Amino acid sequence: MTTLADCRALDAQDPLRALRELFTLPEGIIYLDGNSLGPLPKAAPERIARAVREEWGQGLIRSWNSAGWFEMPQRLGDKIARVIGAGPGEVVATDSTSVNLFKVLSAALSMVAADAPARRVVLSERSNFPTDLYIAEGLCRERGCELRLLEPHEIAGALGADTAVLMLTHVNYRTGAMHDMAAVTRAAHAAGALVVWDLAHSAGAVEVDLRGAGADFAVGCGYKYLNGGPGAPAFVWVHPRHADRFWQPLSGWWGHAAPFAFTPDYRPAPGIARYLCGTQPVLSMTALECGLDAFLAAEPLGGIPALRRKSLALTDLFIALVEERCAGHGLGLATPREHALRGSQVCLTREEGAYAIVQALIARGVIGDFRAGRPDILRFGFTPLYVGFEDVWNAAEHLRQVLESGEWRGPEFNRQHAVT
Amino acid sequence: MTTLADCRALDAQDPLRALRELFTLPEGIIYLDGNSLGPLPKAAPERIARAVREEWGQGLIRSWNSAGWFEMPQRLGDKIARVIGAGPGEVVATDSTSVNLFKVLSAALSMVAADAPARRVVLSERSNFPTDLYIAEGLCRERGCELRLLEPHEIAGALGADTAVLMLTHVNYRTGAMHDMAAVTRAAHAAGALVVWDLAHSAGAVEVDLRGAGADFAVGCGYKYLNGGPGAPAFVWVHPRHADRFWQPLSGWWGHAAPFAFTPDYRPAPGIARYLCGTQPVLSMTALECGLDAFLAAEPLGGIPALRRKSLALTDLFIALVEERCAGHGLGLATPREHALRGSQVCLTREEGAYAIVQALIARGVIGDFRAGRPDILRFGFTPLYVGFEDVWNAAEHLRQVLESGEWRGPEFNRQHAVT
Repeated sequence: MTTLADCRALDAQDPLRALRELFTLPEGIIYLDGNSLGPLPKAAPERIARAVREEWGQGLIRSWNSAGWFEMPQRLGDKIARVIGAGPGEVVATDSTSVNLFKVLSAALSMVAADAPARRVVLSERSNFPTDLYIAEGLCRERGCELRLLEPHEIAGALGADTAVLMLTHVNYRTGAMHDMAAVTRAAHAAGALVVWDLAHSAGAVEVDLRGAGADFAVGCGYKYLNGGPGAPAFVWVHPRHADRFWQPLSGWWGHAAPFAFTPDYRPAPGIARYLCGTQPVLSMTALECGLDAFLAAEPLGGIPALRRKSLALTDLFIALVEERCAGHGLGLATPREHALRGSQVCLTREEGAYAIVQALIARGVIGDFRAGRPDILRFGFTPLYVGFEDVWNAAEHLRQVLESGEWRGPEFNRQHAVT
Repeated sequence: MTTLADCRALDAQDPLRALRELFTLPEGIIYLDGNSLGPLPKAAPERIARAVREEWGQGLIRSWNSAGWFEMPQRLGDKIARVIGAGPGEVVATDSTSVNLFKVLSAALSMVAADAPARRVVLSERSNFPTDLYIAEGLCRERGCELRLLEPHEIAGALGADTAVLMLTHVNYRTGAMHDMAAVTRAAHAAGALVVWDLAHSAGAVEVDLRGAGADFAVGCGYKYLNGGPGAPAFVWVHPRHADRFWQPLSGWWGHAAPFAFTPDYRPAPGIARYLCGTQPVLSMTALECGLDAFLAAEPLGGIPALRRKSLALTDLFIALVEERCAGHGLGLATPREHALRGSQVCLTREEGAYAIVQALIARGVIGDFRAGRPDILRFGFTPLYVGFEDVWNAAEHLRQVLESGEWRGPEFNRQHAVT
């Protein structure tokens, strides 16, 4: 049996322990929802205040040049590239994940329409993040394509001569199950299809190697594991072999080859810059950069591979503690046990009361979450940058107490309202 | 001849004078570029710091509900509605102007395709803001429509049985010339076309009455006259008679009828909410709200009509001072003299040296700007919220000195580089 002393010993030995000091976490809170919104980097308040008071307040319009605002999508993109296995100049930070998905899926469908017009099917998972499916549904309607939704095990068999694009989220937001990016990409390419990856639940959380996998397109989120702040801009990557081939339809001024020439005709910039559209929210971009800098600070300590090892140790520990200490309370495990198939979260299942149990834990200061689409799931994200092994012990202990006391049956935990 | 004493007297009588105290302006700067980036509202640094430290840092994911993040697009939209003649619940603050233009132009073309498929032409002005033309160019390619660019005086004659959509910017960014929104909308409707208005250079600067004009669609910018901060989110308005008719193709989760139900199928929200797409940058939205609150503070002082009167008095004064005091230096006037045709800026023309003269003025602390697309234009924005009559005197006086001294011919003012 694992003990609290064991967990403390793991913290004492943790080479990444110091990274926790890069973040502000509220007193008395165990935060297991970094997969919804990452916490505040300690550097952010001062950096944002400087952007507000000096760059905006004093520099005014001059700051587009003097404060480097104009280079932010690329500068931040290069930092993101280092955590997703992309090269410099291949990523831009911009817009929202949904908008970026629209851009890359449009471009992918345009490529297929030119190269293999008989391919008219977009494949995805039924349990993909809904906004991805909504964007694909809209685009398929417009392009006369079919969106076909599958269970994960059906994907390999469904790839065929009619497949235009396979669009997947690398780590499933509900279950924490992870696709083998290299193998899936290989299978899709063998079938003649392009692959679009959504890294919302993997960038910054697991090892991602877009170049190594030979992927075609990717998008991801700035405010989850990248800790960029509420609604932080997202990112987009296109493999250089495709980046210059097509316009994406959101052809705004910032994606123009000569954005300050003010010519009436659009001429897309070379490379990933053509995936920019309109002016970006500089203050939110500034916050995002603070989140990204934490990953740069992690590089001398082993970077993403070291973070991944710790993440797996944290989720292994949580699974073990729940099984040892919460047995007999009807909990199941939705997240795969196999490391290669697991993201950075643990999803427990329970036939009854998942929502109320999550609420009772939040009242105790253990913040996990619940997603309405799968009402039987309790979701806990374990972020190796700032979650420690003792936190995992305490989270499991609170869960045990909530289940043993039955306090989750209280009416205050059973009022459903909008949750994000 | 107008004197400095006259200008000081105008300031002393100005009922809107107190509004200047709502903004931080750098010491020694006369800021005539609020039409590119509005200045910092005094309330913003503290409000943004609270959003960073308390809402994000302490509230974390809970702030989506407890800090009202989720209602921001509508809450800010309702504030914007009051300055553009729209009703509550008709506007959302979201995304960039370019992305929003894509949404409304898509919806407009879908409507025309359903109602009058023979109409395949989108009309616009050749000197429209380039990003608007780029978005229209991309969409027209995709929908098989033709984008036809005209001079302003050609518009009325070009409206016809083939016109699908007339897309115009209300106030021209280069010249400050303003369209008669009601008359143009009437003419377009009489010809059976829909009208999309870009309010980037008019929202917050001139009286806009979308409902009164019976307009169909509008978009606009948050960081110019609305003073929302660098790259602040933009806004979108759709007349309620159209809002429920069509999907716009950026069908993300935030525009879903039940965004937290996590259903795999998209079902657009009723009304303007369906023009939302992905998660919005909360920190930049927070800054935008501070900018909007300045307009609420102006309401008891006469609101937009009073601001408009002052704006015209400021631009009248600048034109008069330039003509009285800078005569013989080769300056012309690109902005219409007639009030009904003038926005809130004055554009001067000069065959030679426009760029260098603007640079020499900036070196003296008078910030106007220059746009590469029309290299003969010096542009000065006059924002009645914080620009005073003595500022206008001083700006004209600096301009006179720059021209008389010939200092603009110095090499330091003649190095062209990227300007925004």
